[in-house]
Amino acid sequence: MTSMENLRSQFLEYLQQKVTLTEPAGLYDPVHYILQLGGKRLRPLMTLMSAQMYGAPVTSAMDAAVAVEVFHNFTLLHDDIMDAADLRRGQATVHKKWDVNTGILSGDAMMIMAYQQFLSYEPKTFYDLNKLFSKTALEVCEGQQYDVDFETRDDVTVDEYLLMIKLKTSVLVGCALQMGAIIAQKDIVEQEKIYNYGIELGMAFQLMDDYLDAFGDPETFGKEVGGDIRENKKTYLYLKSIDNKDFAAELKDLFAQDYRSLTDQEIEDKKARAKELFVNSGGANRTLEAIEDYTQKALKTVESLDMEKEHKTILKKFSQDLTSRIS
Amino acid sequence: MTSMENLRSQFLEYLQQKVTLTEPAGLYDPVHYILQLGGKRLRPLMTLMSAQMYGAPVTSAMDAAVAVEVFHNFTLLHDDIMDAADLRRGQATVHKKWDVNTGILSGDAMMIMAYQQFLSYEPKTFYDLNKLFSKTALEVCEGQQYDVDFETRDDVTVDEYLLMIKLKTSVLVGCALQMGAIIAQKDIVEQEKIYNYGIELGMAFQLMDDYLDAFGDPETFGKEVGGDIRENKKTYLYLKSIDNKDFAAELKDLFAQDYRSLTDQEIEDKKARAKELFVNSGGANRTLEAIEDYTQKALKTVESLDMEKEHKTILKKFSQDLTSRIS
Repeated sequence: MTSMENLRSQFLEYLQQKVTLTEPAGLYDPVHYILQLGGKRLRPLMTLMSAQMYGAPVTSAMDAAVAVEVFHNFTLLHDDIMDAADLRRGQATVHKKWDVNTGILSGDAMMIMAYQQFLSYEPKTFYDLNKLFSKTALEVCEGQQYDVDFETRDDVTVDEYLLMIKLKTSVLVGCALQMGAIIAQKDIVEQEKIYNYGIELGMAFQLMDDYLDAFGDPETFGKEVGGDIRENKKTYLYLKSIDNKDFAAELKDLFAQDYRSLTDQEIEDKKARAKELFVNSGGANRTLEAIEDYTQKALKTVESLDMEKEHKTILKKFSQDLTSRIS
Repeated sequence: MTSMENLRSQFLEYLQQKVTLTEPAGLYDPVHYILQLGGKRLRPLMTLMSAQMYGAPVTSAMDAAVAVEVFHNFTLLHDDIMDAADLRRGQATVHKKWDVNTGILSGDAMMIMAYQQFLSYEPKTFYDLNKLFSKTALEVCEGQQYDVDFETRDDVTVDEYLLMIKLKTSVLVGCALQMGAIIAQKDIVEQEKIYNYGIELGMAFQLMDDYLDAFGDPETFGKEVGGDIRENKKTYLYLKSIDNKDFAAELKDLFAQDYRSLTDQEIEDKKARAKELFVNSGGANRTLEAIEDYTQKALKTVESLDMEKEHKTILKKFSQDLTSRIS
């Protein structure tokens, strides 16, 4: 089994060889720019790991891994426009470095380029990868739409929130893993198992992201701690906290303040108070329990997979590392 | 052979049955909205005609025709955002009726939905349709990028302009026709012939559109006559006119005026003068010659196609109708 570090460098080298279009520069420069901004490349690594653990050569999964990474970066590009975000991984976003029109069109090109990566597979595998990819990509759009819708709603339920993060985040993790199984020619039952593992892992990962947004270490979190609180994002942490009637009113008031009308000190006070309320209401613990619950489900699903024991051990360790970034 | 009118109504009925996703409404309402705005549906009709003329049932080409139409409307949706256009077929554009973010995301969903239409084909046909579609879609993005680039350049050559309209318009016509040949299982040589016919027809069609923008009948043209002149678009008509050294200086000056600084009367005067210069320089005649040239090439290519004589006659009539809207 190739180490994660080794897989990552193999992938990055392949990615650079594979995405080489240059003209017109106004279309393709932003594509190269966003693809080299970095990131952990977790999704494509999952495709490579899955294929390898199911007995297929890593090289046979490279094109699908590139498709997953190019698609993921396409979503980041268009999401950054929709969120009017200035920075991505500490660098200017595409629509800031160029302009919104460039961001739209280069993103469109990336989606098509993602589909083109599958063309190296023979027709049956090509069909299966495409079908899964299109279903997933459309779900990611639906998740993004729900996320937008929820910003202006104050009656979002926990179930609705879980559906939203499943669509926006988890399905692409499931898809990345299932692609490895498709390439290794595993049957649909096995494909669905590893897909479900990806869903469970993705849910645990996203809920941990919500938790760390409030309680993470500013040194290691990589994003602004408390950013969700500043922007009144109704995450799992918030929704579980307002489930406690004794805390609902104050939290709802706090999350009705527009940060653009607050001083820096008032924003810091708001973050500190929200965190107290998340803890005292029990919302923080409910969130940790949900993370643990999804992680345990993921570990159990790994146990049921049709692969060698040593690979299951690696997947379990990988799952726990991903969902216990708190420690 | 089914009549165009009959094909169109069959297609519209099928389109409505096929595109039925509704939730989240914020994502799918704009998709239904733009798909029912109307239009001549020429591109999907070409897929249906091509399949039928090559001996495949019209029903077998419906899904590919839907893909072509959904993709074409996706490009209109994103182009309207980039052009800040308020109206499309006399109705509010998606980003005006909703907002820019909705336009971006619903457009993204439409591109994926276009790809999904091919899933009803068996893997080999699926592969061939997908490969052609992705190549074409990426070329359309490249064409749009060149169009954007040309707005701020004053040294665009005729060859560059022809490449731009080929990518932005003609390749999708070629693709729509080739898809019919793929579905009818014609070999690659025949596929390329009908693709080339589409390119030639698309070029003649787009150049006629450029010509009619200046010289069309306001009653029948459907768009603002002189819109390209108002916006200083360097079309074939303009580029061929400035090839005549005696007229280049005045035309370049005229096309350096920003319409936002002109009164309505000044815009009318500018349009009238530009038309005079187009005629007197010989640019108008050069454009009509190029349209005739592409049309003759298209008719010759039809002659070489492997289909019944009566079908060639229909295609030739269709080509001439499309490229002689002047009469």
